[in-house]
Amino acid sequence: MASPSLAASSLRIDLAERSYPILIGSGLLSDPASYDDLPAASMALVVSNTVVAPLYANAVVQALRGRFKTVHVLELPDGEAHKDWPTLNSIFDALLSHGADRKTVLFALGGGVVGDMTGFAAACYMRGVPFVQLPTTLLAQVDSSVGGKTAINHPLGKNMIGAFYQPQRVLCDLDTLRTLPQREVAAGLAEVIKYGPIADMAFFDWIEAHIDALVARDGAALAHAVRRSCEIKAEVVGQDERESGLRAILNFGHTFGHAIESGLGYGQWLHGEAVGCGMVMAIRLSQRLGGVDAAFAERLIALIARAGLPTRGPGLGAERYLELMRVDKKSEGGEIRFVLIDRPGSAVMRAAPDALVREVLAECCDPA
Amino acid sequence: MASPSLAASSLRIDLAERSYPILIGSGLLSDPASYDDLPAASMALVVSNTVVAPLYANAVVQALRGRFKTVHVLELPDGEAHKDWPTLNSIFDALLSHGADRKTVLFALGGGVVGDMTGFAAACYMRGVPFVQLPTTLLAQVDSSVGGKTAINHPLGKNMIGAFYQPQRVLCDLDTLRTLPQREVAAGLAEVIKYGPIADMAFFDWIEAHIDALVARDGAALAHAVRRSCEIKAEVVGQDERESGLRAILNFGHTFGHAIESGLGYGQWLHGEAVGCGMVMAIRLSQRLGGVDAAFAERLIALIARAGLPTRGPGLGAERYLELMRVDKKSEGGEIRFVLIDRPGSAVMRAAPDALVREVLAECCDPA
Repeated sequence: MASPSLAASSLRIDLAERSYPILIGSGLLSDPASYDDLPAASMALVVSNTVVAPLYANAVVQALRGRFKTVHVLELPDGEAHKDWPTLNSIFDALLSHGADRKTVLFALGGGVVGDMTGFAAACYMRGVPFVQLPTTLLAQVDSSVGGKTAINHPLGKNMIGAFYQPQRVLCDLDTLRTLPQREVAAGLAEVIKYGPIADMAFFDWIEAHIDALVARDGAALAHAVRRSCEIKAEVVGQDERESGLRAILNFGHTFGHAIESGLGYGQWLHGEAVGCGMVMAIRLSQRLGGVDAAFAERLIALIARAGLPTRGPGLGAERYLELMRVDKKSEGGEIRFVLIDRPGSAVMRAAPDALVREVLAECCDPA
Repeated sequence: MASPSLAASSLRIDLAERSYPILIGSGLLSDPASYDDLPAASMALVVSNTVVAPLYANAVVQALRGRFKTVHVLELPDGEAHKDWPTLNSIFDALLSHGADRKTVLFALGGGVVGDMTGFAAACYMRGVPFVQLPTTLLAQVDSSVGGKTAINHPLGKNMIGAFYQPQRVLCDLDTLRTLPQREVAAGLAEVIKYGPIADMAFFDWIEAHIDALVARDGAALAHAVRRSCEIKAEVVGQDERESGLRAILNFGHTFGHAIESGLGYGQWLHGEAVGCGMVMAIRLSQRLGGVDAAFAERLIALIARAGLPTRGPGLGAERYLELMRVDKKSEGGEIRFVLIDRPGSAVMRAAPDALVREVLAECCDPA
């Protein structure tokens, strides 16, 4: 039985004919009403992974049975290391071998990797079929399932091959957070914390006051964190769907973070761990450029540490970091562009002198 | 020196903020003015193949030099058999190893395979970079370069993985048709002929009257055929960019044609050859359903033969044809939907009884 604070609520991503709702609450996955009014089709394919499918796939299939003549389940291997072409192609293989048509609806049941790959498969299969996000990790509920960014990794860079492709609906079932490993809770908190310095210092204050409750998975605290994160993301994405400007602020900590992920090999650190540590470097760079003072930087770093996230970068060496960051999608003409805090609650995208970046890397990373 | 009838003309695909011009004329590829007002970027990548690049890549690179700081050329292997993931990935490899950013402009220099793959690479690289179509085959100029359909093949079906993604511009340089092998001219004429029965019987009459001139590559005849084909396609695509209805009529002959292509193995027959032969079957099926009389069917088949195209399907066996057609993108719930002529100059999409389809296959194909 859901407590009142966990009762389902909904908000909306406003993108004209591509608008869609985000439902947040308990018991959503297994409730057939969660799937009302989806596009009609004879077939559904639930894409999940070997860890999540045993926990929730059956409940989802049962709930979908009344709406689709056939419901198939595909289990992908788990983890960022598999966010690649062969795994993506296994989704196409499944769709084609089941005779999926242009109306078949895909359901992404899992974390960010499952959501990014299922969304990209939906974008490409027969040039586009509908899909629904069923995020089961905190990170996916507060960030990656919302806003229509889909992608796979390339050995030379993270999320390099993808599409902007919006889901029909996002269902954030808070019950799934109970089964999440603690490391995944911390990784998700990195993306929650992110929204404070870039957009909403009142939310930042709230996170600081509730960080222990969040780490301990207090239901009411998580419900508020998911809802407020989705609200901020919805507002930003509604203004700039395809990241021609504003939306880039959501990548705070991600330039350094992506370098950690691809430098160590995908899957060594969780995405949220790399982002948490990337925010440490990004706030130190912001501090050097005068956007925030040392006290604010240390406040943010302390919060990242309290979430259970690493605050020191791996020793890849400064040149390797710079090389990896130059292929970041925000780079232009070989110049790295960082998302930096120009004052608490406000972010900008800008270049920074290599010398300052090297200072930050020396300060924040293990020796090479 | 261009003759008056070959002077550059332009028309427009009208898709709101995704609108773009199609320029048709002589000497366009090597004229720097053809590339005026493209999005600013420091890098361009010209994607071509091993047959076309030696003929035209140098002229294109020279014309682009004033506009882009660096211009790279990538040669793909030639032919439909290579319209697959490994070849697509070689475009991503080239972009990433050259340090291409989000503004890099791709140029698709070649036929339909190069255009479809370069367009899909542009759709996916960093979730979308600008691209320009430089079609060098008749088929690409009259059909595949216009309208934003991009894709690669999957072993289980043609064009199964792709995107609707519009180019910035299409340059149809009529000079390139002079170097085209005769087999490619015939293949292109299949898509020219197609526009008659589905949309414009006056154009059909004109093609009949000029088929010998077209086969002999008379410049004025080709210029008119390219222009009128692009006009019809622009009108259809402008009304239905993502093929929710009307646009499907452009696939007349393609349901049977795709079955030939994937049944024989990609690259055995040219796409246009398969479409030409597919129109023979589609018009015989239309005749059986009362849309056209025998005289019209025979008139169309005679024209296809005069273009130098095959009019008898390979002996795959009826069951194999049906199986291949059931995975066509127009199928729904396992029911094959054909584009058929309901009266000369007008097409509809509809299902047909398997028994009638078998009759048509028995009549139009070699024995299995």
